[in-house]
Amino acid sequence: MSPQANLKPSLDENFQACLKTLESLLAEMTEIRRHLHQYPELSHQEVETPKLIAEYYRKLGLEVRTEVGGRGVVATFRVPDPVKTIAFRADFDALPIQDEKDVPYKSKNPGVSHACGHDGHTAALLGFAKSLVENKDRIRHDVVLIHQFGEELYPGGAKAMISDGCLEGVDAIYGCHLQSMLPSGRMYYREGYIQAAVDTFEITVKGKGGHGAVPHEAVDPIVVASHIVTALQTIVSRSTDPLEQLVVSVGSIHAGDANNVIPGEAVMTGTIRSYAPETRKTAREKLVKIASSVADALDAHAEVELESGYDALWNHPEETKIVKKAMVNLFAEEDVLETSPVMPGEDFSYYTQHVPGSFFFTGARPEGEAYPHHHAKFDFDETAMLNTAKTFMAILHQY
Amino acid sequence: MSPQANLKPSLDENFQACLKTLESLLAEMTEIRRHLHQYPELSHQEVETPKLIAEYYRKLGLEVRTEVGGRGVVATFRVPDPVKTIAFRADFDALPIQDEKDVPYKSKNPGVSHACGHDGHTAALLGFAKSLVENKDRIRHDVVLIHQFGEELYPGGAKAMISDGCLEGVDAIYGCHLQSMLPSGRMYYREGYIQAAVDTFEITVKGKGGHGAVPHEAVDPIVVASHIVTALQTIVSRSTDPLEQLVVSVGSIHAGDANNVIPGEAVMTGTIRSYAPETRKTAREKLVKIASSVADALDAHAEVELESGYDALWNHPEETKIVKKAMVNLFAEEDVLETSPVMPGEDFSYYTQHVPGSFFFTGARPEGEAYPHHHAKFDFDETAMLNTAKTFMAILHQY
Amino acid sequence: MSPQANLKPSLDENFQACLKTLESLLAEMTEIRRHLHQYPELSHQEVETPKLIAEYYRKLGLEVRTEVGGRGVVATFRVPDPVKTIAFRADFDALPIQDEKDVPYKSKNPGVSHACGHDGHTAALLGFAKSLVENKDRIRHDVVLIHQFGEELYPGGAKAMISDGCLEGVDAIYGCHLQSMLPSGRMYYREGYIQAAVDTFEITVKGKGGHGAVPHEAVDPIVVASHIVTALQTIVSRSTDPLEQLVVSVGSIHAGDANNVIPGEAVMTGTIRSYAPETRKTAREKLVKIASSVADALDAHAEVELESGYDALWNHPEETKIVKKAMVNLFAEEDVLETSPVMPGEDFSYYTQHVPGSFFFTGARPEGEAYPHHHAKFDFDETAMLNTAKTFMAILHQY
Amino acid sequence: MSPQANLKPSLDENFQACLKTLESLLAEMTEIRRHLHQYPELSHQEVETPKLIAEYYRKLGLEVRTEVGGRGVVATFRVPDPVKTIAFRADFDALPIQDEKDVPYKSKNPGVSHACGHDGHTAALLGFAKSLVENKDRIRHDVVLIHQFGEELYPGGAKAMISDGCLEGVDAIYGCHLQSMLPSGRMYYREGYIQAAVDTFEITVKGKGGHGAVPHEAVDPIVVASHIVTALQTIVSRSTDPLEQLVVSVGSIHAGDANNVIPGEAVMTGTIRSYAPETRKTAREKLVKIASSVADALDAHAEVELESGYDALWNHPEETKIVKKAMVNLFAEEDVLETSPVMPGEDFSYYTQHVPGSFFFTGARPEGEAYPHHHAKFDFDETAMLNTAKTFMAILHQY
Repeated sequence: MSPQANLKPSLDENFQACLKTLESLLAEMTEIRRHLHQYPELSHQEVETPKLIAEYYRKLGLEVRTEVGGRGVVATFRVPDPVKTIAFRADFDALPIQDEKDVPYKSKNPGVSHACGHDGHTAALLGFAKSLVENKDRIRHDVVLIHQFGEELYPGGAKAMISDGCLEGVDAIYGCHLQSMLPSGRMYYREGYIQAAVDTFEITVKGKGGHGAVPHEAVDPIVVASHIVTALQTIVSRSTDPLEQLVVSVGSIHAGDANNVIPGEAVMTGTIRSYAPETRKTAREKLVKIASSVADALDAHAEVELESGYDALWNHPEETKIVKKAMVNLFAEEDVLETSPVMPGEDFSYYTQHVPGSFFFTGARPEGEAYPHHHAKFDFDETAMLNTAKTFMAILHQY
Repeated sequence: MSPQANLKPSLDENFQACLKTLESLLAEMTEIRRHLHQYPELSHQEVETPKLIAEYYRKLGLEVRTEVGGRGVVATFRVPDPVKTIAFRADFDALPIQDEKDVPYKSKNPGVSHACGHDGHTAALLGFAKSLVENKDRIRHDVVLIHQFGEELYPGGAKAMISDGCLEGVDAIYGCHLQSMLPSGRMYYREGYIQAAVDTFEITVKGKGGHGAVPHEAVDPIVVASHIVTALQTIVSRSTDPLEQLVVSVGSIHAGDANNVIPGEAVMTGTIRSYAPETRKTAREKLVKIASSVADALDAHAEVELESGYDALWNHPEETKIVKKAMVNLFAEEDVLETSPVMPGEDFSYYTQHVPGSFFFTGARPEGEAYPHHHAKFDFDETAMLNTAKTFMAILHQY
Repeated sequence: MSPQANLKPSLDENFQACLKTLESLLAEMTEIRRHLHQYPELSHQEVETPKLIAEYYRKLGLEVRTEVGGRGVVATFRVPDPVKTIAFRADFDALPIQDEKDVPYKSKNPGVSHACGHDGHTAALLGFAKSLVENKDRIRHDVVLIHQFGEELYPGGAKAMISDGCLEGVDAIYGCHLQSMLPSGRMYYREGYIQAAVDTFEITVKGKGGHGAVPHEAVDPIVVASHIVTALQTIVSRSTDPLEQLVVSVGSIHAGDANNVIPGEAVMTGTIRSYAPETRKTAREKLVKIASSVADALDAHAEVELESGYDALWNHPEETKIVKKAMVNLFAEEDVLETSPVMPGEDFSYYTQHVPGSFFFTGARPEGEAYPHHHAKFDFDETAMLNTAKTFMAILHQY
Repeated sequence: MSPQANLKPSLDENFQACLKTLESLLAEMTEIRRHLHQYPELSHQEVETPKLIAEYYRKLGLEVRTEVGGRGVVATFRVPDPVKTIAFRADFDALPIQDEKDVPYKSKNPGVSHACGHDGHTAALLGFAKSLVENKDRIRHDVVLIHQFGEELYPGGAKAMISDGCLEGVDAIYGCHLQSMLPSGRMYYREGYIQAAVDTFEITVKGKGGHGAVPHEAVDPIVVASHIVTALQTIVSRSTDPLEQLVVSVGSIHAGDANNVIPGEAVMTGTIRSYAPETRKTAREKLVKIASSVADALDAHAEVELESGYDALWNHPEETKIVKKAMVNLFAEEDVLETSPVMPGEDFSYYTQHVPGSFFFTGARPEGEAYPHHHAKFDFDETAMLNTAKTFMAILHQY
């Protein structure tokens, strides 16, 4: 049984009309995106971007709230007697990376660029909104258009916008991230955890320096750090449910300058990636305990700094089924794929803690050489914006 | 310059006379030793042996104290206007080992035997005492003859005998152990530490048992024990002065009955061998701390039982020089050797904590096959008793 | 949309008739099961059990092959113009466990019992077959009834029966295991891996024994084993895809008898539980390499014996959907549950490597105290046989 | 019995005369030392220093060989019918350290200074030689005066000078090092090992870099390095005779730049300090084996570079007794001390591999603040030169 079979014929006609509108809007989306790309703004410092967004909505005649949770913009498309209220979210902040592309729409803000595609997210959502307005009689639901600031920089903007009411009355929420390394034309969904909770840590082992020839007068922080590293392996190997996912990686270790001197301290940094909150909590606690107690065992002292990142992003099953059906309605079956969970954090996670929702990926690999996100030459295929907006539309028509 | 050169001619004559007496007493020493060998008594249960010793001294007309510190016997040989008071000690307890030798003087007490040569020590000291009496005009020093009980079984007899005054007025003390695996005719001295302090430990790692397939529901004591063992290596490698000696060995580890069940606990036993008190103290403290804190680091609990053995036996330099000179006066230079420190404990250590002294070894390998101490077939060459007694005499004549 | 909605009304009637027949057969199934329970036969030694099964099918008039792959029995129910050929499998071997239940149908074979419920599997499949015969006009598919020997004892019977053709012409295969600890009346399905691949290992670390006080003359196998255990943790923590599942547990370690003797060897046993073949392969290879090379690093030698168990059992997605729908047709929605993967092995895994299929669990907790599988007092609620047979029937009617 | 008792009265008189001469030469020694201090020359680049030394000896009328083994100078003082031929050695190279003292004799060579006291060694030996010439009728032995280049920089100058014959006909050799941190007026001897063999190592663990979230695609060199460090502890704790001395210290470890990236390699450096050649050999071999095999166990590769330093310096017992007696003849008993072994290397070790000899320390702590050797403000009390020369003279008079 294919998902299409569930689409009522009457809906289909409306849906088709909406899709056509969206196709006609790609040029405008591209224009908006390129404008934003030239004037990127750092997380939590966005000024012109939210202004532009709010202005666009006012011109569309939609109700707009600005400074939501700080710098967010929320517009609402309303229909008479709405069946549901569905939200879509796009983030709009940029990164502290110098744009090194050679394109006409290259960033004009030195040291700042949209190297993660949030310009595309924003343009796609604006285009989607415009298509709603142009097809307002074909839509049976209220739509909340959430433009979020600060996604790239903890603590993000989602939590503040939620506190400020952006999800009030919302029945479900959806969002998307462009993926510059995945083929344009392909769409990716996943039920359950799709992006990890990311915590980072720094462990400073304080020993006591001394001459390498008289170790008993020193407390050797390199030996202590080594015992900590080997013991940390047990967090994953022994203390985690084998059916859960967890990574604890020490990414750096530095101690000492000379072969014959026992240094006074060793510093390690690392990352914890998890999905289930219980797994995350246990891993964080174990990390602190292992570092502290192993150091203690060997007469040293370990200071552990744990920096929290976003919670893991969990896609609700029912809403993910809707996403998948939406995709299958639009794309060839072989282009609709289940993605593995990915490891970067995403504060969309907080929305789905409050209302049902699902986050998906849109393949956006450009012609020619592709660069990963956060790369100085990052770019994406702009038709991915259309695919995103169409998927939003298809999702909406599932209800 | 040979040590003999220091002997005054007048002393020499007396010394030679004493040695001759001793030689004439070997038969008697042998008879005594074989009697004791047939009637061995366990440590702290000696009854007949001290009675025999006390009786022997009474017949010699010497002053005797019995029940010294419990079961010890102390006789004193006195001269008019003594220059010094020198003590010699022999231990007289036996071992819970069935005698499996086929000799006429085989033990008649089932399950008990003199498998460590204390019968020989006793007989040698008695013979030495008799030779003093027979040469009383040739001796210028008071001699205290200390027959100690309970050496084989902690807490030994030495500490109690010292508390009970056996060293009162003593200027120096000497003792000897026969060595069944070293050639008869050879003598061994050592300045400083000659026998180690021996501590034993038992570490019980209490985890939480569970199925091998769900480790997160258990606390794996095998992994914890492994981390403890690897961390214990640092006691020697990092926490001990490289110029000091220390051994920490885990001799056994036992945990689990099945490949697919995580057991509830792991039990390890081991030994600490040390010389310097500070090294010993540090090692004991570190062992407890490492086991406890590493277990704690991994959510388990470690119980550590530390059983103390005798202190390390330290030979005073001056008294050891006297021992060496005494040996060189009697034996060919190539037969007088410095021994390496050995690892079994010996409660003679407590005497040299109170008065200067030195403990030496007498080679006593028998004809035919030799067996180590504590072996069911242990025996020794009885002429080693004479060599011991002669060395006592030569020591005395050094003063 | 409920699965029932997919059942054609005409099929429904037939299905209902089949279910009624099955209900009428519970008494017979129980009788058969209790007979088998009294005369259990060990894996690969089954004689009377396959004879009984073959005889039963002959009486039903079905085509029967015996000695399939050794001791297996395969009967085929045929219809004219079959749409599909669907296989169902039950295993019939027993365990070397003394039956300690106090029931009339207690095992009469000393030291052998059906402590895993294979008697129930067999009786359910026989009852199911009889219901087919009695409703032959209501069935549109050929049904292959596979009675397998030797499941409890590697290498099992499945592989041999497959080699001997038992899956020829089969479109899909289904099987079930009763679960004495899960509530009777509940049914459990799972897409993908449902039972782990189970490998066991024994690592013998050969060092060199010696006195605990002279470690340099020995090679300490306890220290080597400890380093192996700590290094083995990296198989899961570093070498395994965090999205895959793996457990490597050392379940036992034994070395040494005395605190002051370094033993000559240490022996560890353990288990590897995995699902994905690549994960399993890597884990097995790493285990051998780590044990060997770590031992080598410390001058010891490690002998590793790896005993393979069955491959992980993977349920095909489409066939699992069919199982789930079948269950939902029969049971209340809250009684149809997704099970987590479980860790014991099951050689049903080989069938689904050849044809699509799915394996499920039937809750079978008896009244009163329940005992786990392989327990001497194991028993199950016999109505679980009916639930199993009904689910088989519902599966068949999905086609 | 005091050592003086062994000095023949006739010798005593000669000895006293020699000492008086030496005392009169302190001003000249100081002048020479301060000249050398202003014109220090780096190891293996010495030109003016050996020229000055050779010229001095020519003026004294002694037989001189230059360019011995490269840049060494050897003078010989000869007597008619010599009893013995005794050698004394002083090293004359300087260090690549900027002199930061504020003294009139501060180094005039930028970046080079006599921060280890070799200028003092040289001046003391020259003064000693002059005193011999001035007392030639009072001396009964030939004396070889060895001025060595390049001691500070491996491979040193000793081996080449020995190969070039500087020890031919020599019966015994003596040398000394000033010690700026030990009280001036005190002298230090030690039988057996007095300075350690120093080896250095660098271990590069080559893993495979990757993202911290996907460890299975990487080979984590930090985990590997940690296992190597913990395993290296066993070299000292398990593989070394507890009665021998050994230190293996990892002084630095560096890997990685980011908390979320698994780096490609980890680099460790460290030092091995040993005395007995067998211990050293074993430690070096174990280090390589442990690093290589542990890396191998975890799929990484370890490259180990071992750089050899000088052999440990072993003082012969008889010659050390002579040193001690010489010291006791000159200094108060409480000022003649046994030193512990020290850890820096010294290529005097090669001389005592060829002929009997002993190396000693002369306390040389200056007034005011004292700085350790190799410190930019290093200086010493110049009367230590006289104490050294007097000890040489007393040694000579022991023969």
